[in-house]
Formats: sequence, C-alpha cells, structure tokens
Amino acid sequence: MTTQEVRATYLIETPFTLEYAATVMAGEQSTGTFVSVPGETDHLKAMHAAKIVSIKQLESAPYPSLPGYKAPEVTGKDNVHFQRGEVTLSFPYHNFGPSLPNLLAAIAGNLYELHEVSGVRLIDIALPKAFMDTYRGPQFGIEGTRRLTNVFERPLIGTIIKPSIGLSITELRKLVRRLAHSGIDFIKDDELNGNPPFAPLKERVVAVMDEIERAADKTGKKVMYAFNITGDIDELRANHDIVVEAGGNCVMVSVNSIGLAGVAYLRKHAQVPIHGHRNQWGAMTRHPLLGMSFTVYQKLCRLAGVDHLHTNGLANKFYESDASVIQSVQDCLTPMYGKDTLLPVLSSGQWAGVADASYKSMQTIDLLHLAGGGIMAHPSGITAGVASMQQGWEAALKGVSIAEYAKNHQELAEAIQKFG
Amino acid sequence: MTTQEVRATYLIETPFTLEYAATVMAGEQSTGTFVSVPGETDHLKAMHAAKIVSIKQLESAPYPSLPGYKAPEVTGKDNVHFQRGEVTLSFPYHNFGPSLPNLLAAIAGNLYELHEVSGVRLIDIALPKAFMDTYRGPQFGIEGTRRLTNVFERPLIGTIIKPSIGLSITELRKLVRRLAHSGIDFIKDDELNGNPPFAPLKERVVAVMDEIERAADKTGKKVMYAFNITGDIDELRANHDIVVEAGGNCVMVSVNSIGLAGVAYLRKHAQVPIHGHRNQWGAMTRHPLLGMSFTVYQKLCRLAGVDHLHTNGLANKFYESDASVIQSVQDCLTPMYGKDTLLPVLSSGQWAGVADASYKSMQTIDLLHLAGGGIMAHPSGITAGVASMQQGWEAALKGVSIAEYAKNHQELAEAIQKFG
Repeated sequence: MTTQEVRATYLIETPFTLEYAATVMAGEQSTGTFVSVPGETDHLKAMHAAKIVSIKQLESAPYPSLPGYKAPEVTGKDNVHFQRGEVTLSFPYHNFGPSLPNLLAAIAGNLYELHEVSGVRLIDIALPKAFMDTYRGPQFGIEGTRRLTNVFERPLIGTIIKPSIGLSITELRKLVRRLAHSGIDFIKDDELNGNPPFAPLKERVVAVMDEIERAADKTGKKVMYAFNITGDIDELRANHDIVVEAGGNCVMVSVNSIGLAGVAYLRKHAQVPIHGHRNQWGAMTRHPLLGMSFTVYQKLCRLAGVDHLHTNGLANKFYESDASVIQSVQDCLTPMYGKDTLLPVLSSGQWAGVADASYKSMQTIDLLHLAGGGIMAHPSGITAGVASMQQGWEAALKGVSIAEYAKNHQELAEAIQKFG
Repeated sequence: MTTQEVRATYLIETPFTLEYAATVMAGEQSTGTFVSVPGETDHLKAMHAAKIVSIKQLESAPYPSLPGYKAPEVTGKDNVHFQRGEVTLSFPYHNFGPSLPNLLAAIAGNLYELHEVSGVRLIDIALPKAFMDTYRGPQFGIEGTRRLTNVFERPLIGTIIKPSIGLSITELRKLVRRLAHSGIDFIKDDELNGNPPFAPLKERVVAVMDEIERAADKTGKKVMYAFNITGDIDELRANHDIVVEAGGNCVMVSVNSIGLAGVAYLRKHAQVPIHGHRNQWGAMTRHPLLGMSFTVYQKLCRLAGVDHLHTNGLANKFYESDASVIQSVQDCLTPMYGKDTLLPVLSSGQWAGVADASYKSMQTIDLLHLAGGGIMAHPSGITAGVASMQQGWEAALKGVSIAEYAKNHQELAEAIQKFG
C-alpha cells in the first residue's frame, strides 16, 4: 500500500461473480457511469479509477441477504447462487484528499444501492497518515483520561445518571453528591438527556460541578463527569465552554447525531476529552451484510477526535454477542499510526460479576467500565455499588473467583445476590 | 396528537408479543434501565416515559430478519414465531425540545440494538411545529428553484458532470461551456467530486461560473449549477461563500457526510438552494426491517433545510423498486406544515424514455430530472441529449407515446435507439 491510496475492504454477496461485482463497485465509486461517456479516457481512468486489490472467496449462500438484487440474465432468478467474498478496493487518495466527508462518499456511498450485490458491508479501511495529520485524532485518549482521573493500574469505574431522563436539577444534585462521595471515577449523562427545557444543560453543569468540586475538596478525588453536550453545530462549542468554564473535565456527544464532521469540529476546539456515545449505531451494523463493521467505525471516530467510545459490555442487554464486544475492544486498543488508541467504554447491563470474564477475554485494564443499574440499584446503595464493582475487578486481577472473593467482601456478595 | 409530543412509528419484528417489545422500546428510549433504580418515581414516569399509542398486528414471519434476538424462555429457540407489527410510540416533547440531534438519540437511538426485536425500522414521525419554527426548513424549495431557473410548467432537466471524477479544470470548462449552451436547466457535480487536490473547488467555481455567465450573456438563460461543497464543518460556509461570490446559485452537499446537524448549520448561512445528495443512504434503508424509511429521512432532511433531495428515478440502476421511488417522490411533495415541500431529484440510469412512465406514475411536474449518461452519451451530443429529454417530457405531458413523438423528433428517436 502506498501513501497515495485508500484501501477499503468489503464483505459482499452477489448473484454474479465476485470479480464482476467488484468491478461494478470500483466503477460506480470512481470514474464510471451506466454507459461510457466522452472524456472517460484511458489517462483519466489510470489516474482516477478505483482498482481491485484482492478478492477472497468465502462460502456461498443459498438465499440473498438483501432485496433488490438483479439476477444474471444467463441463469434467471430461479437458478441463482449467491457468491460471498471479501473484496479490497484501492481508491486514489487524490480523488478526495484528507477529507472525511468526501472519503465517505467514495468508500461508503452509492455502493450500498447497487443491484449487482445482495449484500455489502464495509469491514476495514486503511488510510494514508495524512488523514490523521489533518484531523489529529484523540486528544486525550487512554493516557490523558487516566491522568485527569488519577486512576492507574485498573479499569476506570463509572456510571450513568439514572433515571435516564426526568430528574430535576435538585434531584440530580442530590444524586451526584452521593456519587461524588462514593469513590467512583466517572459519571456520564444518559444519551437521552441532552439539553431539555425542564433541566437545561447550563443549570445542570453548574449544579453538578458544584457538587463535584465540594466532594473533591473533602475526598481529594475529583470525579470526571461527561456532560451530554449533543446539540446543533453552533451549540457544540458554546456547550463545551459552559462545561470547561465550570471546571468540568469531559464532554459527551452522540456521535451519529452530530456526525463525524460535527465531532471533528468540536475536536478542534475541545480542551477536555470527548466521550463518544454511539446510539443509532445499531441501524448501521446489526445486519451482517449491510452497513459497516465497528472496526471501520471506530477508526473514523478516532480520526474525528473521539477519546472514549462505547463498545457494549459482555452479557449486555442488547443484541451484540460477547465475541463482537471483545473484537470491538481490541479494535479500540489497536494503534492506527501510533499513540492514537481509544478508551473502550463497556456498558449495558453491567455489574461487578462481569469484571472477571471481561478481564479474561479482553486481557486489558484500559477500560472504562460503566454500570448504571448495577451501581444505582445495589441493595446497600451507591457507595456499596461502586465498591462491588471495584471488588469485582480486584478479584479478576488477582485471579480469584468472585464467589471466593465475596466471602470477605460484603458489597460484592450483595451484588451477586441481586444481579447474579 | 398534542403539541407536546413526538410520535414515532416503527415496523418491528419480535419473538415476544408486540405489546412486550413495544413496552421495552418505550422504556429503553425514555425512563427505564435494566433494573428499577431509586428515583424512577411514578411522577417521573408520568412526566417523561414514552407511551404506546397503537399497535397494528401484521402477518408473522417464519424466520428472524436480524441476528441477536433473545427467545422468550417459555418457548425456546426451536419454537419461536416472529410477530410483525407497526408500533406507534409517543415521546414527551420536553424530553429533548426542538433539537434534531437529541431527537434522533430518542427516536432512533439504542432501540436498534434491543435483543427483544429481530427487526426494527423507523417508518414515520410526527413532530410539533416547534421543530420547523426552530430549523426553518427549505429556504427555496420547489417554488424558489423555479424562480431562480425560470422554468415553469414542466420538470427541470439536469445532468451530472461525467466522468464523475478526474476532469481537469480545462476539460471541465469545455464541458460546462457545451452544457451551458445546450438549453439545460441544471448541472451538478458528482458526489465523488468534492474538493480534490487536482481540481480544487475554488478553481472549479471560477471556471464554471465564468462559462455559465458567458453563456447566459448569449442565450439569456443562466443554468443552475450545484457545486459539491461537501467538507468539514468550517469549510461549509467558506465553500458556500466562494460559490455565491462567483455568482453561483446552488450548493450541493452529501447529507450523510456532513450530517443533519451540518445541513442545519449550512442552512442558517445559505443564500442559495441546498441540493441534498443522499449517498450512504442505502446502508440505512436497504434492509426492509432495519434503519429508517425514506418517509422519515426526507422529513428530517427537510427540517434541516435541504431544498432538493435525491429519490432515484424509475428503472434506475440501483436496487430500488419503482414503487419505492414513486412513494419517495410523493413523500417529498407532501407538505408537513405548509409550504415546506422538497424538490425531488430523479436520477440513476435516466434518459428521455423514462419521462412518460414518470409522469404517469408520479402525476407531477415538480421534478428535477437528471440524466448523466442519458444526456452526455447521446449519439448526437449534449445539446441533442438535452433536447431528447425535453421531447420525452413534451410527449408525456401531451399524452403521446414516445414512439409516436419520435417520428418528428430526431433527438428523441436517437435516444430511443441508443438507450431504449
């Protein structure tokens, strides 16, 4: 691979040959149209056409994954077999330059609509370093987040404000007070709680930071709080500034609500880590032969400047398998060009008992482990909930089973009884 | 429906009852988490919980549409039936206020990941008018675009610069010169041609507008040219200004590359129509039980401020059926709150012969009909290609078959021979 190309790998399914489908994809996404047109010279094609790098045949499928495919004329629809394979295309870098929005139009644009395929999923990308030089990537990442929270040698433990939506400023203040004294490292707003009229972000920031600072004065530990600043583009900077001026040290955005372009815009201005929530992502990835893989998504998020990215956790309440979660964590922790890794955020149905399996399968402590109900609904309250999470990780890191560790750790024992 | 709620309708598929799945969706997207937490009071639920408005049972499915569903414990996986239905939920408007980014997190967020469903697609939304008051919607729409192009009582005829990518400024200049003298109403950049290093937008704008103005001086007709200004957020305004300062009268963006938030940001500043290209949209909609319908998408685009939106055309080269294209055109032409309709853009594999079926099925002339190859690859050249498109529409509007009309219209006859 040269510095003058972008490579994109797709999982495709087609009633045609893989070669033919790949040729159509390369044409559609670069110099071709449905008929040859004047000006489509050999020189132009040599300079600007996308090219097939490799094709890897996989097992074929008896049924099509997606509707709207066209059957080859020779066989007819009754007789169609659906070839599956991995296709890597090379796009000339100078077709778009280091622009994420224009890159997307090329590597993930109209090709999803081609009727030559009955399935197409973008599963990996390789980009020239010029993209990272332009966008700059995570400003804080794992190391910066550890520095700001002063947590080392174990995962960060965090929670989500619950109920997700509806707490008044007074109720929120009380909850944050308890959390800020609980020994927790990190708190975040729910993605459903942006800037609602009944509890505007501005008031929330003042109340929350007041509680956090007062607790920090007492305990010496300043909790990181990710304020959900999701909003229109011109609100992003203003909302960020409200947080920073109040002494806050993290902002959260719904990445897919503001777009990668919105994240990149915020990144240029940001003085604190950007906590990336991936809601809406299921629509882009749940079908295995459509959309894109998390491997690609986290690379794009990383380039745009996200510091923390949600990956779900093991045994989550969503559709995602443990194997997929583990792969996602590995993706976030794999450098693209150097020190540009993301802090993976485990969440969804998490509690103390998930620590052991997480550590065994992920083999890392570079995690932000969020438990909402798993902390808030602990039978002995929030501080016990946080203690149970810490104990779960202590057990995991010591290689002791939680059943064994719970014998001398009451909070863990209670968590096992309630959530186990 | 009150002014204090947002309604969202989903097509869902579930191994559980529709009622149960709908309850889980409503909980996940408002006040619930996986266990009850302190603070989730009756008062809070009454004020902030999403509620089920209606459930319409449809025919059940023998197989699940998506992986990762959880089977009800009573039946076990072998015995599962997949209920399908349309579910309408009501979300309290004050949970997010008139904010598109925060609306999306609520109505189209984590619910795609729920394992209680084996299929979920957002198929319609109804929003309080406060959203339109905030975002303002299409600034030009159909009427404004007709005014700027001086085209009435017939569809606008347009083309896409082809080859999509790779023309030098000199080659582009020559092509635009010919197009600007051809009688065409509208030209657009390809979505693959943004701001590439070898032909930067700035130079392209100067060259193109020079040709267009000079042609207009001669012919009295100033072609509308949609410059692809897709780029990072802080480039959008600058790129827009480059176009307007050069006398340009339209800008194009890849909506999904800059996000709805990016479009709304541009809309606040825009002095010319925003031509919305929907590349990447296939990933969001091609599977019939995932993502969202075009009905929803065009409402969101419209709110954000798009003036023209691509719908594909009949007999297109993509996966989309004619029925779906016709529905999309109707969606664009259906007012939400008043004069807020979008100009539908028919494209993909279009030529003169498609006019008749388009008019018969769509029953409107409020269309922007784009033909790339269908104009550029006409045997007698570009001017003949444009004439053939006009003749195709003349025949359609007169109720004459194109075969009949072609007897006295040479350009149409040649088009039929080449593309028919």
